Amino acid sequence: MSSNDSTIRAGVLGASGYIGAEVMRYVALHPNLTLEWATANRDAGRPIGDVLPNLRGFFSQEFLTAEAGEARAGDADVVFLALPHGDSQEVVPRLAAQHPRTTWIDLAGDFRTPDPDGFAKYYGGPHRAPDLLDRFVYGFTEGQRETLPGARLIANPGCFATGVLLALFPLVDTGMLSDPVCVTALTGSSGSGREPKRTTHHPERAQNLRAYKMLRHQHLLEVEWFLNGRSDSEIRLQFVPQSAPIVRGIFTTLFLPGKPAEDVLELMEQAYGREPLIDVVAGSPDMRVVQSTPRAIVGVAGEADRGAVVFSAIDNLGKGAAGQAIQNVNRALGLNETAGLEWPGGYV
Amino acid sequence: MSSNDSTIRAGVLGASGYIGAEVMRYVALHPNLTLEWATANRDAGRPIGDVLPNLRGFFSQEFLTAEAGEARAGDADVVFLALPHGDSQEVVPRLAAQHPRTTWIDLAGDFRTPDPDGFAKYYGGPHRAPDLLDRFVYGFTEGQRETLPGARLIANPGCFATGVLLALFPLVDTGMLSDPVCVTALTGSSGSGREPKRTTHHPERAQNLRAYKMLRHQHLLEVEWFLNGRSDSEIRLQFVPQSAPIVRGIFTTLFLPGKPAEDVLELMEQAYGREPLIDVVAGSPDMRVVQSTPRAIVGVAGEADRGAVVFSAIDNLGKGAAGQAIQNVNRALGLNETAGLEWPGGYV
Amino acid sequence: MSSNDSTIRAGVLGASGYIGAEVMRYVALHPNLTLEWATANRDAGRPIGDVLPNLRGFFSQEFLTAEAGEARAGDADVVFLALPHGDSQEVVPRLAAQHPRTTWIDLAGDFRTPDPDGFAKYYGGPHRAPDLLDRFVYGFTEGQRETLPGARLIANPGCFATGVLLALFPLVDTGMLSDPVCVTALTGSSGSGREPKRTTHHPERAQNLRAYKMLRHQHLLEVEWFLNGRSDSEIRLQFVPQSAPIVRGIFTTLFLPGKPAEDVLELMEQAYGREPLIDVVAGSPDMRVVQSTPRAIVGVAGEADRGAVVFSAIDNLGKGAAGQAIQNVNRALGLNETAGLEWPGGYV
Amino acid sequence: MSSNDSTIRAGVLGASGYIGAEVMRYVALHPNLTLEWATANRDAGRPIGDVLPNLRGFFSQEFLTAEAGEARAGDADVVFLALPHGDSQEVVPRLAAQHPRTTWIDLAGDFRTPDPDGFAKYYGGPHRAPDLLDRFVYGFTEGQRETLPGARLIANPGCFATGVLLALFPLVDTGMLSDPVCVTALTGSSGSGREPKRTTHHPERAQNLRAYKMLRHQHLLEVEWFLNGRSDSEIRLQFVPQSAPIVRGIFTTLFLPGKPAEDVLELMEQAYGREPLIDVVAGSPDMRVVQSTPRAIVGVAGEADRGAVVFSAIDNLGKGAAGQAIQNVNRALGLNETAGLEWPGGYV
Repeated sequence: MSSNDSTIRAGVLGASGYIGAEVMRYVALHPNLTLEWATANRDAGRPIGDVLPNLRGFFSQEFLTAEAGEARAGDADVVFLALPHGDSQEVVPRLAAQHPRTTWIDLAGDFRTPDPDGFAKYYGGPHRAPDLLDRFVYGFTEGQRETLPGARLIANPGCFATGVLLALFPLVDTGMLSDPVCVTALTGSSGSGREPKRTTHHPERAQNLRAYKMLRHQHLLEVEWFLNGRSDSEIRLQFVPQSAPIVRGIFTTLFLPGKPAEDVLELMEQAYGREPLIDVVAGSPDMRVVQSTPRAIVGVAGEADRGAVVFSAIDNLGKGAAGQAIQNVNRALGLNETAGLEWPGGYV
Repeated sequence: MSSNDSTIRAGVLGASGYIGAEVMRYVALHPNLTLEWATANRDAGRPIGDVLPNLRGFFSQEFLTAEAGEARAGDADVVFLALPHGDSQEVVPRLAAQHPRTTWIDLAGDFRTPDPDGFAKYYGGPHRAPDLLDRFVYGFTEGQRETLPGARLIANPGCFATGVLLALFPLVDTGMLSDPVCVTALTGSSGSGREPKRTTHHPERAQNLRAYKMLRHQHLLEVEWFLNGRSDSEIRLQFVPQSAPIVRGIFTTLFLPGKPAEDVLELMEQAYGREPLIDVVAGSPDMRVVQSTPRAIVGVAGEADRGAVVFSAIDNLGKGAAGQAIQNVNRALGLNETAGLEWPGGYV
Repeated sequence: MSSNDSTIRAGVLGASGYIGAEVMRYVALHPNLTLEWATANRDAGRPIGDVLPNLRGFFSQEFLTAEAGEARAGDADVVFLALPHGDSQEVVPRLAAQHPRTTWIDLAGDFRTPDPDGFAKYYGGPHRAPDLLDRFVYGFTEGQRETLPGARLIANPGCFATGVLLALFPLVDTGMLSDPVCVTALTGSSGSGREPKRTTHHPERAQNLRAYKMLRHQHLLEVEWFLNGRSDSEIRLQFVPQSAPIVRGIFTTLFLPGKPAEDVLELMEQAYGREPLIDVVAGSPDMRVVQSTPRAIVGVAGEADRGAVVFSAIDNLGKGAAGQAIQNVNRALGLNETAGLEWPGGYV
Repeated sequence: MSSNDSTIRAGVLGASGYIGAEVMRYVALHPNLTLEWATANRDAGRPIGDVLPNLRGFFSQEFLTAEAGEARAGDADVVFLALPHGDSQEVVPRLAAQHPRTTWIDLAGDFRTPDPDGFAKYYGGPHRAPDLLDRFVYGFTEGQRETLPGARLIANPGCFATGVLLALFPLVDTGMLSDPVCVTALTGSSGSGREPKRTTHHPERAQNLRAYKMLRHQHLLEVEWFLNGRSDSEIRLQFVPQSAPIVRGIFTTLFLPGKPAEDVLELMEQAYGREPLIDVVAGSPDMRVVQSTPRAIVGVAGEADRGAVVFSAIDNLGKGAAGQAIQNVNRALGLNETAGLEWPGGYV
């Protein structure tokens, strides 16, 4: 599978959640991917375009049950798992061995680190497929580009993790990082998924701001593990996620007290200057510019007597989920890395 | 210019306003259009991607002054005029005669009807190129499809006009319309353009609703003119535009008291059932499904003892401006009508 | 109970829903009302300020169970019923007879008309206390002022009903009304109550617009009943409720094709010119000005050759629920009608 | 002026800006304050209720020109200066000496520290009344309570400064603060004032997030000066203000890596446990609970192995401006400190 003319057959498990729906949208936008099947248990039997009206006219199929989809796993060259956290641990052991030519990419938190104890601590219970953990490649594309080609099992990073890693990864072992690194990240409401809940109830969210899972969000696990595997000294985060009254996006702020902003900006430009999906700017990104796209912006600002701050802006469902998944699949299958990802969002 | 493999060279006048910026985005998304030049007077000399960061990486040019752009009109196969209302009246007389092989499409209100008196009444002053008025084709694509091929002068409909016509056009001379037809349309704030003003000041808009230009919005001119040219009986609108706290979109509601909803729905399905960019639904559309896309949804609802209502949902900058402009240009130049328009928006 | 110095003891049934919580807020703001008890079944035993943090410091009590609250009904001079639709039909028959000196005001839809058939049609099932229906006074204060003093059973109007009646009531039998009257009303998300659901899920509501219960919303029942009881000719509504991405407010638009706006405005000024809580304006109200207050704005606009439109703006939880309930209770108990209601909201 | 029955005559300079309009609202809500006059240069001669429709029915006066208002300075017991930054430096020297019995409270940034060099650095030019600087009392009420009684010249803190000081002040000299202290604060759009501008243009703000004046916001001046005057060791802030798509509010996050959250919470409860306008909570505040009110919430959270974070939530126009101004005036004039401030906001 090495040519840009290839047709890649895709299956999507859990296609009616917000992440799954966005994977479907990215499949529709991809010149090489074609949808083989998609599952949506509660909507099984309904035409895709009835459940996801934004995709009306793009797919003619009906949603399958999970069972029916799994039975057709072998028809797909790549399967996207967009299931609730915990479900991939059941599915992958059952199916991956049976279908050795299929590429599996998990968009949940099940296989992001090789650390079962960390998993148990942050995800609230023991891992049910611990022996598979170290067989997955962690798909933070820009930091993992060389190990992706040919990968059959890929764990797509979390949305917060992607935002934080984009801001932080180029600074590892540069002497720029404090211990701990203080970080806030504001998230849009779509990050909480399709199921209505109190924290995403419009009357209580629309003009609100609040923090949650302070200093203990589960994405800490993958971020600290990934960075510490690439760093000479231990990196610890003081990480505060916050709910913002936007629908899409993650806006990350990282403090670098006492560090010169111009040096930080130069490190960012070295790291990302040639990245097709990442813009580096002096100053703050505007969140809206990347909303509903696979793109990211990294910004750097500072004052001579105080130090620097780094920002990153991504779409939680785009670069933070479906967009990065496509990027990883493109690399794994030998396509152009940005195939299906080169389209702009709106100015507003 | 008749093949889908053609490369069409585009010029854009006024490319940094919201409509112009969206035209630029649609050019970037179009497989056959290539940007020859774009003007933005206040931003002349700046790279396009600096002014419109959503387009960073998509265009390498700098913005030109209006003067420099006009001097290069002959290099373009099609020129999009996205100027403030009134400016096209100056530009088109000056340039269109000089460049007889160029297609001109005006996205402002200058050339939408052949009626100079109507123009004077609704736009606050006499038309300055009245002899050109009847040379323009009014580009409400779905209602004007046959006159577009080969058109050199196209007036793109207003955003409200598009929303209202989509809901109303299939009902002309069917006996469904009251006299007058009562219509409301809610608009997003991007319809007011890029210049900050009181009515789009975030603290006063964000949780507000209000009506404006009640019963006298200038789009009445083109809607009533267009319909009455196609109707046996006079059609008058009781039209109330309203400001909603959304960024993009126009949501139109049209009353058909005493009419059977099932018959209305059937008329809509006959009219739009095969339209690639229009979905017909029983019930109400969801505004968000078409936001930031070139698509439209028309919905019909009713109660046996009361009658029917028709809804339409479009993006004011998409189907209501840049999207329809591309559709019109595609037809005028012999491309596939939906070239560059077949991509989905997000579910949220 | 006739002096402004009186202390009125209030009980609130269902105080943790949005309407109940707003009643609590209005009780806190009222110089004569004192909270005797409040029930919140799911939060029974918790301090009021923990459940409703906006009221921290205003009440020292804990929430009671429904059962415990009902047992204390006799301690209250007035009981506000802010229960889910249908529950008041159980409670009032059980308690009102036992406590003949207590005033009962129901904020649900259970007792708003004397018409059990209409109730069955619009509320989806037979009324369970039909013999009580005609003992209730319908509390559209401005149209019912003379029957309220001394009333012991009051049905507070629905939020949409209040918005529509404010716009429509002064026009009954003036020759201004079409048949049917076309009306739209936009509502904020708090109107759907505290329970998260799909239509109030922030990712799907925040930039959305949609209509619902088109031509069959249950508030039609009370509006048409109330008006037809006061009109020589039958009044029918073509009523389309719509969901707007705001938290609070109802913005109503009513069409009067062919009628002179100046005459309509004069009728409104005659009706409301001396009302302390209603402003009459030429043009459109701004929704935000009355949000989170007990006030209303009625506006009139028109064009000479087309006719008129009338608008009203209220807060759905204020004038549309708790505010009007206080107004009604004030009148019923002989207090100054606006006691506890004379405070302004913010400009933004 | 020492009794709660007193009538205090208020003048307001600059009453049609957002801060001035909110001062007017708080005057309307205050049992002891009566409006003597209010100026609004651009709206001079217009009834107050026409310019500020939320106050219709509360004031019968018309707005005066600045000149006419100043001429009546002597009629006021207290004058609120809600002028654009820089104007108070002109007005106070001219009027305060003439009217020695009037209390002056400046809500702009002109007189908040005695440091003219700091002013020049952060406000972009030399101070024009430097000799008055040290005659002002800085009105961070909770930290300055003892010096306010009898004060004739009061500088009301900035909105960000108030949010940051509430979170930080109780921690001075407790060993809890890092050097520097990392702080973010999210602000609503009303903080940018009534004049429309690009950063508050609804289409660009409504779903956006961005940082601005990173590490160099002018409120750093007053916060660092105030704290360092009360601390044994130097306190420096790494402060990143951010624009959120809300209308009202400031949500502050302050990092205390390595510090035990339970100890921090105890310090907060010691400091604020008896404050009538401040709630202390374990966890994060919800921004919306204090919007449009004079109240504040301080929250503390932490993890055993990581440390603590402190949050504060205020309304930028309430506790961050008009509310605190009233609190300060109440203390200065010997009224109950919370007179006119004891009313709740909504739950949503």
